Amino acid sequence: MSDLQEIVSEIVDAMRAREDRGEVATYIPELARVDPGAFGIAVIDREGNVAVGGDADTPFSIQSISKVFTLTLALGKVGDRLWSRVGREPSGSPFNSIVQLEREQGLPRNPFINAGALAVTDVIVSGHQPREALGEILRFMQFLGQDGAIAIDQAVAASEQRTGFRNRALANYMKSFDRLDNAVDFVLGVYFHHCAIAMSCRQLATAGRFLAHLGRNPETGLSVVQPDRARRINALMLTCGHYDGSGEFAFRVGLPGKSGVGGGILAIAPGKASIAVWSPGLDPSGNSHLGRIALEELTRRLGWSIFGM
Amino acid sequence: MSDLQEIVSEIVDAMRAREDRGEVATYIPELARVDPGAFGIAVIDREGNVAVGGDADTPFSIQSISKVFTLTLALGKVGDRLWSRVGREPSGSPFNSIVQLEREQGLPRNPFINAGALAVTDVIVSGHQPREALGEILRFMQFLGQDGAIAIDQAVAASEQRTGFRNRALANYMKSFDRLDNAVDFVLGVYFHHCAIAMSCRQLATAGRFLAHLGRNPETGLSVVQPDRARRINALMLTCGHYDGSGEFAFRVGLPGKSGVGGGILAIAPGKASIAVWSPGLDPSGNSHLGRIALEELTRRLGWSIFGM
Amino acid sequence: MSDLQEIVSEIVDAMRAREDRGEVATYIPELARVDPGAFGIAVIDREGNVAVGGDADTPFSIQSISKVFTLTLALGKVGDRLWSRVGREPSGSPFNSIVQLEREQGLPRNPFINAGALAVTDVIVSGHQPREALGEILRFMQFLGQDGAIAIDQAVAASEQRTGFRNRALANYMKSFDRLDNAVDFVLGVYFHHCAIAMSCRQLATAGRFLAHLGRNPETGLSVVQPDRARRINALMLTCGHYDGSGEFAFRVGLPGKSGVGGGILAIAPGKASIAVWSPGLDPSGNSHLGRIALEELTRRLGWSIFGM
Amino acid sequence: MSDLQEIVSEIVDAMRAREDRGEVATYIPELARVDPGAFGIAVIDREGNVAVGGDADTPFSIQSISKVFTLTLALGKVGDRLWSRVGREPSGSPFNSIVQLEREQGLPRNPFINAGALAVTDVIVSGHQPREALGEILRFMQFLGQDGAIAIDQAVAASEQRTGFRNRALANYMKSFDRLDNAVDFVLGVYFHHCAIAMSCRQLATAGRFLAHLGRNPETGLSVVQPDRARRINALMLTCGHYDGSGEFAFRVGLPGKSGVGGGILAIAPGKASIAVWSPGLDPSGNSHLGRIALEELTRRLGWSIFGM
Repeated sequence: MSDLQEIVSEIVDAMRAREDRGEVATYIPELARVDPGAFGIAVIDREGNVAVGGDADTPFSIQSISKVFTLTLALGKVGDRLWSRVGREPSGSPFNSIVQLEREQGLPRNPFINAGALAVTDVIVSGHQPREALGEILRFMQFLGQDGAIAIDQAVAASEQRTGFRNRALANYMKSFDRLDNAVDFVLGVYFHHCAIAMSCRQLATAGRFLAHLGRNPETGLSVVQPDRARRINALMLTCGHYDGSGEFAFRVGLPGKSGVGGGILAIAPGKASIAVWSPGLDPSGNSHLGRIALEELTRRLGWSIFGM
Repeated sequence: MSDLQEIVSEIVDAMRAREDRGEVATYIPELARVDPGAFGIAVIDREGNVAVGGDADTPFSIQSISKVFTLTLALGKVGDRLWSRVGREPSGSPFNSIVQLEREQGLPRNPFINAGALAVTDVIVSGHQPREALGEILRFMQFLGQDGAIAIDQAVAASEQRTGFRNRALANYMKSFDRLDNAVDFVLGVYFHHCAIAMSCRQLATAGRFLAHLGRNPETGLSVVQPDRARRINALMLTCGHYDGSGEFAFRVGLPGKSGVGGGILAIAPGKASIAVWSPGLDPSGNSHLGRIALEELTRRLGWSIFGM
Repeated sequence: MSDLQEIVSEIVDAMRAREDRGEVATYIPELARVDPGAFGIAVIDREGNVAVGGDADTPFSIQSISKVFTLTLALGKVGDRLWSRVGREPSGSPFNSIVQLEREQGLPRNPFINAGALAVTDVIVSGHQPREALGEILRFMQFLGQDGAIAIDQAVAASEQRTGFRNRALANYMKSFDRLDNAVDFVLGVYFHHCAIAMSCRQLATAGRFLAHLGRNPETGLSVVQPDRARRINALMLTCGHYDGSGEFAFRVGLPGKSGVGGGILAIAPGKASIAVWSPGLDPSGNSHLGRIALEELTRRLGWSIFGM
Repeated sequence: MSDLQEIVSEIVDAMRAREDRGEVATYIPELARVDPGAFGIAVIDREGNVAVGGDADTPFSIQSISKVFTLTLALGKVGDRLWSRVGREPSGSPFNSIVQLEREQGLPRNPFINAGALAVTDVIVSGHQPREALGEILRFMQFLGQDGAIAIDQAVAASEQRTGFRNRALANYMKSFDRLDNAVDFVLGVYFHHCAIAMSCRQLATAGRFLAHLGRNPETGLSVVQPDRARRINALMLTCGHYDGSGEFAFRVGLPGKSGVGGGILAIAPGKASIAVWSPGLDPSGNSHLGRIALEELTRRLGWSIFGM
């Protein structure tokens, strides 16, 4: 067993033994049904060695982690013109706050708060039927995750369609400032569905490899984005990837990362590894409680913090 | 001439040729007298090689860059208890905003906005006379900068004492929530004076070396803080070091950094170098305009971004 | 010609001669088609004497003035339980602000901002089909306005249905806090339609008479609400009836009043008269520019201010 | 015994019997020493008939009620130019909020929130020594209250000087936007002292008579302000006189009024009477709990609401 696999296994044991697990998100009814005791982790290093533990092959709802990939797609589509549609600053507010939108006339602060991700989705939808846009996103995830079986959890998507009043408010609010080109329902439909993509830790860590290695998967050699773009997506994950807990994540874990309310976190150790963890219980900022603790332990033991090696 | 020195010299030439220089801060009258055409840079690598250019030996008012060092001092004094006094999240607001303080009952979001730095200064003042506290800060700067001639610019300090109404408002506001232990005037006096410390780029880059090398100066071997603490200070600089332009700085430069309205920026390339730049003209977020551009060019050419090497 | 009619005629002449007319609302496309030069006024005193001038018989879109009457209906339906659904304080914000809703968890400040009116409409809709609820509101207006021909302008209603993104955002936002009992689309549909009721100044002044006379129409003798309720509706109009221009209206006109973006204002001189004015050009707070000036002149000449007679 | 006296006596009895008394303000330490069971009331009608009850002759700290009189003085000094220094709209925020000041660049919303009263005090101070300005205010109160013994409670003033950090924050904040002409400490000194004026209900009701009768005391015949100005001060009291409880006061009591954290309320029944009540316990908005209830009962029984007689 490799050192990395040993550390991963020890972390899984330690996490399984903890009683503090955070609270499973209930605002999307379908998500509330998940097993609160689940825990999975997958780490893939530069050479392609994979260390996994726990429920690393159980698919979960990636939710906001999908925003990293829709951002990548939208940048590929319109390049830096995207930044006229969404900012690059931490919001200092919860993920679904609407206050900042009023102060800044409907322009979202960054692509990882819900409003910003809606703007990004709007860019992807433009020129397509919603179904096509969604297909493009899903195929991108299957390509990056190297698994054609990656799919949308339709029950979760339907659950959000029924209950996503806050996102519906954000989208209409942006539309009132003329910040969405497409019909509100189209954008929301695609957004709810790409958030409902289900992936395992193994698939997710695979999908994130291009971010750890200057834009290309070191194994396949396929380039996804230019090196600079990969760096900048990582920078955005570090400053904005955990909503109003982004500072805390940077402080404790020291890696760029993006969380989702499904309990997943994708973290990137530049030059070293792509990491995915999953534990459904959330902390008050809406980020996976044990997921963050596991990553803190992992980077501490491996000295992977980008802030001093 | 080393490669590093060559790059530094080319950057100085490029910056001197630019006509966009931002606006010199005028809200502190004394600062407005500085030469808007000044530009300096100093880079010190792990081995102690120093590459300098332009006005690298002209002292300037470090202003908010001092907050990195008072944070270091306060952490040394009270350890992690400091975090009950100040948060660790980006504020999503300008440096002198008071709105967030009302929403969060006088608890500042992070140690690098003015309110947070006042809380940190309050911790340093406790148990001292103001004069002693200030002496402690100044000696710490002389020790880190390896130059006993580092001094406070009394004209700048006096200028802020006379005109610093916004900071006076912040301090009284925090006091009204019982968030300062010491007399408002004591805390403000020490704060205005440590912001008025004058240092050259060379001195500042020297002072920042412990942050680039896990808490110790690799040349002298003297340890300033534990490795983890150095990492965490860097993480805070990255997420909060440039006020409401922190996301932009991370996105473009890709290094932890701290700016001051005097036009200086201290940037840290972990494991590689400590860097100081100075150009008095500011961008709308209050950060050195050419300083940021010079750092962007430097890290691009050297591949020093922490987000992908 | 009575003194009152003479004053009214002079005011009409003065208003027609003015060149400052404000700006016609354009955010509802259909409203933008109105003649910006239109001006009408109707005053009905206790004895039923009617003084009219200008376009007093031209129907216009009453828009937010309808909120006075839906409030009256909802109070009749659920009594003071209504106040668990909506507050009674001025908002200090524009009519369509969403910031206050976030701070106060979806509970609107008063029944005259859009969010509050949506809560009131929700109460009226409960237990009905939307079409029935709308019919009830329309019949109430026909009864109060003593004219069975009062109708909804379907083109305006359709225009708002297509473009009312801000109101759609507010309703979804409230729904996300569980502040609406009925389906968002039902509530919005009824809301857009009752705002699209078209009435003339004469009809509107007639409809407002119960508010001037302790809850009953002094001519027909029919009681609409108890005296105390009439007083309280007037109090709400005074403090909240002109959005973020309510203080100004009270200061200058000195009467309870409610404006609409169609350019109408209903004003109440308690014990004396019910007054309706209409001029489509709006001031920056969204209230009829000449309408307010005409009312100021009228109350000044008649000594009708409630703040000193 | 007159009818009015009888009603007043019954109200005193009813208030004394109640157990809900609100909470005495503690943020000014000296105010916390007052007897929470105190209750006083004085009503003076047009003819000069005085009905009193309870502790009507006990002096109490008028606190913010003084703002009505400093507003009157400042309007006398600079006329409508005052309105370039302070607005006329309800704030929708607590009395000491600083958020609105940031949004509106240091311009206070109205003269009755603390920031606005500081702007008004600044106008009075201009061209004077602080001591003279304070003398002018005090003499004005003695003149209006028809009692040369009216004085400043120096212990209360000193208590506020020591602990008034929030007001000190507001004043410095305004100064940072250049919204105060005079030294912050001068303005605060005068402000703290005029808030510390002590008056009885009888004196206060006497002082308010000019507001009930178009600007002049009907007994002495002395004119204090023009009729229009009296109306407008009343309008401001109605919309802004009870901070974030102004809507509630208008809704329930239906009279212009101004409260102070000392537990006093001055209420004006235009054309009818000037009324002062005092009960130290406050409601959550910072207004006298029993004072408001007593006024509600009084106006209900006498039909004095300005919203329908």
